[in-house]
Amino acid sequence: MSTSNSSAVPDSEPAQLDPEIAARLKRDANGLFAAIVQQFDTLEVLMLGWMDDEALRRTLTTGRVTFYSRSRQEYWRKGDTSGHAQYVKGAALDCDGDALLVRVDQVGAACHTGAPTCFTGRDLPVVTGQRPD
Amino acid sequence: MSTSNSSAVPDSEPAQLDPEIAARLKRDANGLFAAIVQQFDTLEVLMLGWMDDEALRRTLTTGRVTFYSRSRQEYWRKGDTSGHAQYVKGAALDCDGDALLVRVDQVGAACHTGAPTCFTGRDLPVVTGQRPD
Repeated sequence: MSTSNSSAVPDSEPAQLDPEIAARLKRDANGLFAAIVQQFDTLEVLMLGWMDDEALRRTLTTGRVTFYSRSRQEYWRKGDTSGHAQYVKGAALDCDGDALLVRVDQVGAACHTGAPTCFTGRDLPVVTGQRPD
Repeated sequence: MSTSNSSAVPDSEPAQLDPEIAARLKRDANGLFAAIVQQFDTLEVLMLGWMDDEALRRTLTTGRVTFYSRSRQEYWRKGDTSGHAQYVKGAALDCDGDALLVRVDQVGAACHTGAPTCFTGRDLPVVTGQRPD
């Protein structure tokens, strides 16, 4: 037994995503999956971001949504720069594991443009359909 | 003027996605972008699918949602096999053009498993967060 070695023993296992959840994920070629963010009370869809396993681990365990930024190639905890944090209220993976739905309480504007959501004012013209009577 | 040639002249331009909309799209390496589908009245998030330009054109102009199936590599008009059609009520592109939000009237179950949505009963354990008072 060597005291000089004991400091190399971590107090706990390195934090990692629950392997049972990781096994359900279907990631793209870059190791990412889509995360839909929805306001928990109004049910408004706020934005779509991207996560990897570590971003999901942080989102599920810290109470704040963390994405992986494809353009900056780094983790991005929503609100750290803007103040527009997303507090996690719930999360669900879809049936084939390639999409996450995160229900949050959004502080301020969800969109970096200052709009309430990333879809606000960006409607496309559509021909609407009608279910048969 | 030749009558034998007139049948080769199309009655209209080939159908294609509005170039102004196409110019706003940010597609992945496979030419696809994410489409979030939301029930227009309850605001429930039903599923996430994938579209290319042609799937979006069909979705915007026919009143029915069409996806591009990554696994089958073909167009897939939701409901043609299952009867669980999605009638389009509105659509919006997000601020950076890599996600579409489609508001629909869903007939029957949105999920191929028969569940109301692809996220139904698939909640993950979360540590919730709380906005500061």
